[in-house]
Amino acid sequence: MFTKLKSYEKLKKLGSDPIDLTNKDIFTLDRIKKMQISSSTREKKLDLRLLYATERVTKDVIDSLFELSKDTNAISKMKDMQDGKIVNSLKGCESENRKVLHTAMRDFFEQKNPSKEAKEASSLAYKEIEKLDKFLEKINKDNKFENIVQIGIGGSFLGPKALATALKKYTLKNREFYFISNVDPDDSSQILDSIDLSKTLFVSVSKSGTTLETLTNEEIVKDFLHKKGLNPKDHMASVTGKNSPMDDPSKYLESFYIWDYVGGRYSASSMVGGVLLGFCFGIDTFKDFLKGASYMDKIALEEDQNNLPLFSALLGIWNRNFLGYSTEAIIPYSQALLYFPLHLQQLDMESNGKSIDKNCEKISYKSGPIIFGDIGTNAQHSFFQLLHQGTDIIPIEFIGFKKSQYQKDLKVKETKSQEKLLSNMFAQSITLAQGQKNKNPNKNFSGNRANHILLANQLDPYTLGALLSYFENKVAFQGFIWDINSFDQEGVQLGKILANKFLDLFAKKDVDFDIGKEYLKFLQL
Amino acid sequence: MFTKLKSYEKLKKLGSDPIDLTNKDIFTLDRIKKMQISSSTREKKLDLRLLYATERVTKDVIDSLFELSKDTNAISKMKDMQDGKIVNSLKGCESENRKVLHTAMRDFFEQKNPSKEAKEASSLAYKEIEKLDKFLEKINKDNKFENIVQIGIGGSFLGPKALATALKKYTLKNREFYFISNVDPDDSSQILDSIDLSKTLFVSVSKSGTTLETLTNEEIVKDFLHKKGLNPKDHMASVTGKNSPMDDPSKYLESFYIWDYVGGRYSASSMVGGVLLGFCFGIDTFKDFLKGASYMDKIALEEDQNNLPLFSALLGIWNRNFLGYSTEAIIPYSQALLYFPLHLQQLDMESNGKSIDKNCEKISYKSGPIIFGDIGTNAQHSFFQLLHQGTDIIPIEFIGFKKSQYQKDLKVKETKSQEKLLSNMFAQSITLAQGQKNKNPNKNFSGNRANHILLANQLDPYTLGALLSYFENKVAFQGFIWDINSFDQEGVQLGKILANKFLDLFAKKDVDFDIGKEYLKFLQL
Repeated sequence: MFTKLKSYEKLKKLGSDPIDLTNKDIFTLDRIKKMQISSSTREKKLDLRLLYATERVTKDVIDSLFELSKDTNAISKMKDMQDGKIVNSLKGCESENRKVLHTAMRDFFEQKNPSKEAKEASSLAYKEIEKLDKFLEKINKDNKFENIVQIGIGGSFLGPKALATALKKYTLKNREFYFISNVDPDDSSQILDSIDLSKTLFVSVSKSGTTLETLTNEEIVKDFLHKKGLNPKDHMASVTGKNSPMDDPSKYLESFYIWDYVGGRYSASSMVGGVLLGFCFGIDTFKDFLKGASYMDKIALEEDQNNLPLFSALLGIWNRNFLGYSTEAIIPYSQALLYFPLHLQQLDMESNGKSIDKNCEKISYKSGPIIFGDIGTNAQHSFFQLLHQGTDIIPIEFIGFKKSQYQKDLKVKETKSQEKLLSNMFAQSITLAQGQKNKNPNKNFSGNRANHILLANQLDPYTLGALLSYFENKVAFQGFIWDINSFDQEGVQLGKILANKFLDLFAKKDVDFDIGKEYLKFLQL
Repeated sequence: MFTKLKSYEKLKKLGSDPIDLTNKDIFTLDRIKKMQISSSTREKKLDLRLLYATERVTKDVIDSLFELSKDTNAISKMKDMQDGKIVNSLKGCESENRKVLHTAMRDFFEQKNPSKEAKEASSLAYKEIEKLDKFLEKINKDNKFENIVQIGIGGSFLGPKALATALKKYTLKNREFYFISNVDPDDSSQILDSIDLSKTLFVSVSKSGTTLETLTNEEIVKDFLHKKGLNPKDHMASVTGKNSPMDDPSKYLESFYIWDYVGGRYSASSMVGGVLLGFCFGIDTFKDFLKGASYMDKIALEEDQNNLPLFSALLGIWNRNFLGYSTEAIIPYSQALLYFPLHLQQLDMESNGKSIDKNCEKISYKSGPIIFGDIGTNAQHSFFQLLHQGTDIIPIEFIGFKKSQYQKDLKVKETKSQEKLLSNMFAQSITLAQGQKNKNPNKNFSGNRANHILLANQLDPYTLGALLSYFENKVAFQGFIWDINSFDQEGVQLGKILANKFLDLFAKKDVDFDIGKEYLKFLQL
């Protein structure tokens, strides 16, 4: 058990008296030089580097954290996952009992001894890519569609939206993307009223083919198409499980498959993201993205301190379990990553917001933190006041790029915008850690506000894939170390049941639900 | 001092053994009927109602919280604020020493004994509205502009964006809005490349006229305009302080004024929001919005338990200081409020993320929580897993509307989308509070997850104004009760100083800054 481990004890002790970064003899040039890990030796193009001198760690802490990862078999569990062992499971109480193979959705490039299960999943996934390639070729030839609207929610929405926004620079001519996710009727109305439906391809995404929001919005879309004299069947594709209600050639131009071993929040690199990314940016860009993700999946299996996702997972656990911080902010200094924090929020909080361990026992330690974030410099002008001077400490993961995406820049007052952006990121990171004493208590900065920077070369498709995988694997590692199941989501079920009771009331069915009736009374004026 | 008050002691005791909402004898129909407050008697159209049976409170707790508000003179401090007394201040250390009069920016409709200062501020603000009215009349006559791009960051961006998105339904013909905020060069490039600059009005917003991001982006915009053979002066207006560098008729078609007593995060109802809202939605819609805000400002002065913003502030303090929760989620079940949580995050965290009291003493209790949020039902499919079953409890403020905005809806499986939306919101609220026991620990819901619902009739301009003021005044009340200064933001200063040192390095100036030089080395491949 987590709290019974020797390494846990050691870290507990180290955490009771963490290093003081406001001390200039500690926060030195030498520390900054030493406290970085990098993937650069293996992949020049990516040059991903994690700068962590601004975390409240020492070499002793890092070594103990890696001991913790050994004590909890983190890497061998990662290997089990990528090999297709049943890791979405619990011992002693009912659960999903599934493989977890999102990594196989992209393992086509330099396979290293994949298991039979992983290989099979990869070859099925590759068939879907070939199907997509043909589908897109036909679309390009027909030259009929300019817009794509993805209908989906949760994992079928946040990941694809984050990725498509990040890759906007790579958009093919005359291609635009939209999403309809919310069951709020104002969501669909606004979009469907504003685009040329005759030039629009709709992609419905639901693994089960039964998601309430998605089915409802699909009906609304069909209604709009009918009213314009268009045949829905000529405008719709689906991404769904084989033999689900949405795997139906009478309704869709094409159905692309996903499998029960790809969880919604881990599905961005499957066809859930693939159809939209392929349509907007071309199949080669999509493949570049997959290649980057697969590269990082391999790094996640390496048994050294340059294992970037493991390193990040361990820093998170240090802050969460040994320094006691309950929140983590993710701040990319990149406009293109505008929706990335929202996707990571889902990925992390839905995976690790759990209270029982793999033996179905209530855990006595903290699991997944609250994740939020926004892009810099915007966030500096928003909630950074609290990050600097609030009564809680919020660890931060900064993400930065050496070069801008568009490479259009202008020197204003001797520096370019990209230089201003990086100056701000570095300055925030150092300032939060170092703090500053001032006689005026209102200008006093207590410092010791833990953070680190993930620095990459430029946000291209390959790097984006690597970044996505970095976070997916970080979250999985934390789950392995906490000994929880990061791959189910029972917490969202109970609300659905009660929502259905409310729907019965709205449909004027006879339901024994007094409290619900009282709520409906609130709706009368 | 906060922790020495009798009411604090009482609440501390009550908080040590809060009511158990999972007990069916406690969470009753009667409780739900009783535990609501409402503004409906005064303003039928608005019908704002706060449903709080799902908070861990009793009548005793509520009464004690109102005692706390009396002990801390919360309402008389609110009166001081609205009257223009110097409330942005500290005793014993240097601070801004300013009035705080954003409420005067909208107090034109039913003035109730305003002070001399407030009256003067209102009449100055009204002059700007008249100026705007004339400016828009001319624009409408010339029929030259279709797009408006606001250049601004922080308060000059998040509030206006949240409001404009919320009011999209009210858009005048051929009007589109955009924002350029980030210093990331990719932000401006993407927008400026995609719109017809000859039909675009730019509005630069900076109170001081010296904000780095805004000045930089303004230069980039001018450069784009020049390259298209357009004269920047014919396309630009500004919102700024009188006599600032941006108050310059040689550069702008018109300059609209703001004053040092309107803080950035409280400026959405001033010309900071006004120019864009007026351009897109017309001056009457803007005035309706102001009317709603002013109505809620008056409610904030009332000495009873129907004072909605005070009530909400007290619930927040109960959860923060007596139940020990460090975060608060804001979840509007409304697509139109997509960007509202981001604005409230800034409003709240920049205001109350402070560690010293008004006497410049370090405080021993928690101040402003971490605020985050997203719209429902989307959020249910994202981070709600952790809200239901995570190891931390995160209080939630739900916001719902009886009617959708567009009133375009379709019955699918016997119910309309709006009914599905409300069913989900109610179900989440109840489920989080009640929980559910299950033999399978993975399907067990511990409940007692505090939340409340703010329910309004429909999201029209008037209601949006009331909502904005509700949150502005809630945040101010919490600051009054915690005895902190909610109106300055010293925490963002230190980062700026260090960023400038980095900029000097980039500009190849001779700076003694070894650590900075090391960071720049990271940028080389």
